Amino acid sequence: MDKVAIGIDIGGTNTVFGVVNKDGKVIAKGEIPTPKKNDINKYISDISKGIKDLLGQLNGYECLGIGIGAPNGNIYKGTIEHATNLPFKGILPFTTMLKENFPECKNVVLTNDANAAAIGEMIYGGAKGMKNFIMITLGTGLGGGVVVNGELVYGNDGFAGELGHITVTAEGRECGCGQFGHLETYCSATGMVRTAFELLSHHNATDSLLATKTFRELTSKDIYEAALQDDPIALAVFEITGDILGHALADYVHIFSPEAIFLFGGPVASGELLFKPTRESMESHLMPVFKNKVKILPSKLKMGTAAIVGASALVAMK
Amino acid sequence: MDKVAIGIDIGGTNTVFGVVNKDGKVIAKGEIPTPKKNDINKYISDISKGIKDLLGQLNGYECLGIGIGAPNGNIYKGTIEHATNLPFKGILPFTTMLKENFPECKNVVLTNDANAAAIGEMIYGGAKGMKNFIMITLGTGLGGGVVVNGELVYGNDGFAGELGHITVTAEGRECGCGQFGHLETYCSATGMVRTAFELLSHHNATDSLLATKTFRELTSKDIYEAALQDDPIALAVFEITGDILGHALADYVHIFSPEAIFLFGGPVASGELLFKPTRESMESHLMPVFKNKVKILPSKLKMGTAAIVGASALVAMK
Repeated sequence: MDKVAIGIDIGGTNTVFGVVNKDGKVIAKGEIPTPKKNDINKYISDISKGIKDLLGQLNGYECLGIGIGAPNGNIYKGTIEHATNLPFKGILPFTTMLKENFPECKNVVLTNDANAAAIGEMIYGGAKGMKNFIMITLGTGLGGGVVVNGELVYGNDGFAGELGHITVTAEGRECGCGQFGHLETYCSATGMVRTAFELLSHHNATDSLLATKTFRELTSKDIYEAALQDDPIALAVFEITGDILGHALADYVHIFSPEAIFLFGGPVASGELLFKPTRESMESHLMPVFKNKVKILPSKLKMGTAAIVGASALVAMK
Repeated sequence: MDKVAIGIDIGGTNTVFGVVNKDGKVIAKGEIPTPKKNDINKYISDISKGIKDLLGQLNGYECLGIGIGAPNGNIYKGTIEHATNLPFKGILPFTTMLKENFPECKNVVLTNDANAAAIGEMIYGGAKGMKNFIMITLGTGLGGGVVVNGELVYGNDGFAGELGHITVTAEGRECGCGQFGHLETYCSATGMVRTAFELLSHHNATDSLLATKTFRELTSKDIYEAALQDDPIALAVFEITGDILGHALADYVHIFSPEAIFLFGGPVASGELLFKPTRESMESHLMPVFKNKVKILPSKLKMGTAAIVGASALVAMK
């Protein structure tokens, strides 16, 4: 009988879920909108029905469990706590509620999305066999998952790995968390857009390809496409993003001495436009004993299904 | 028969060693100068003789092994690698050489001094029972030892935990490692002296108690004593040091989510002069989910023997 694991990824807009086989392949998937209002009972019921529909399509299987990636997910308690971009207030006992619909399923595990991605990379991706590595997810923010001695770093309360929330400029940009100058305000899809607008403003660059979009419209993909056309502002965005990211990665190497650092998310598709300045900046800021040792690699998880695969890996590894 | 462990601490000036009992008490100790010239064979021979003399004084014992704390110590290989303040160049196979004089001793372990201190704190000090904590040693530099899931973070090559070498000001003070703006250039005994001289210069404070000593002479203890007499420059040094240290500790909380952070070293004796601004700065820079959770505590290891006890704990715990 085939062994499968369920992965659920709870995003601000959509909730996706799927059945993952032992090779890390998604063999069935579904999707519902993440509710805008706090109707948690209906939400749990909708997810459960979706998963049962998927499992019903399979011919005999052994289900290893359900893994969930969610913002502010607490692996110790199975709770989602004070997530700002979800409608559920306070502390939500998510795994307890979900288990009621899956009494046969003993293994239900929840953590944040970047931690799930790190586990996914370790089980199915480029970090197979590595005991010490760092996963960085570049999206709306910058998420982190750190593996030390083969185990994920959850910390005392389950919320460790907030790698986007270290200070790179003491009086710098306002961060969504309420602090200032954090790494993710510069190095994330959103941070790149902020840098583009800062540069447009600074250089009064009305002739830039990026000068045709509003602050709400512009995406990191637009910046990538403008860079491919040699737009100087777009090219400068990549240089600056890589410079700041590489400097922060040097700090992380001094702290963790990882074998490799994996980058995941939309901006990673820009390839060497992002990797080259990042690598150069990291190497130039490393202490001698760490130079030319640590690889910066693109994640091997597939963009479209990585969140499901990563979440499922939380239970597949047990 | 009593179980004992040997601890050796290799410093730039002196090498101290001692016999530690199961309660973490040093029951015999010795000291030799760390050589200025590279005569490693004589150095190993002198240490070995010193230890054998100590053991000879005991009435029956079972020796658990020898733990060594040394700059740039590599726990995986037992080597001291490219330590800038020791006369031994390149990569020194320290544990291999020492074992030749102690063939009966199977357990010889070497790591850097801050890691040894962290293990000491966990076995004999204030971190008993903690699975996730951070040890910070404030001396000539700022050393770090991090425990995650009950295990020390050594990283892929054994050199993780360089917590003094994260960047707090991108174009800041020159660091001994060759980089700029690192935490230890501000928050260490040496960093405090640098801050004092910067402030004397900035305020042209010829009337400060600190204006009577040369840059070579001034110590963090002088600054403490001047602060006790309400010297404004000395008081400002503590405010600035605590402010920068607390901000960096907030970053470390975001990364590690520790149960507590222990401070060790000369400046810690200054008590609330250092702890108050550090605590306030850390709390003000924490993300909401981490506020009022993480304790900053003075190490419970005794200053005079902590290095020996910490080093011995490397083998006592096995």
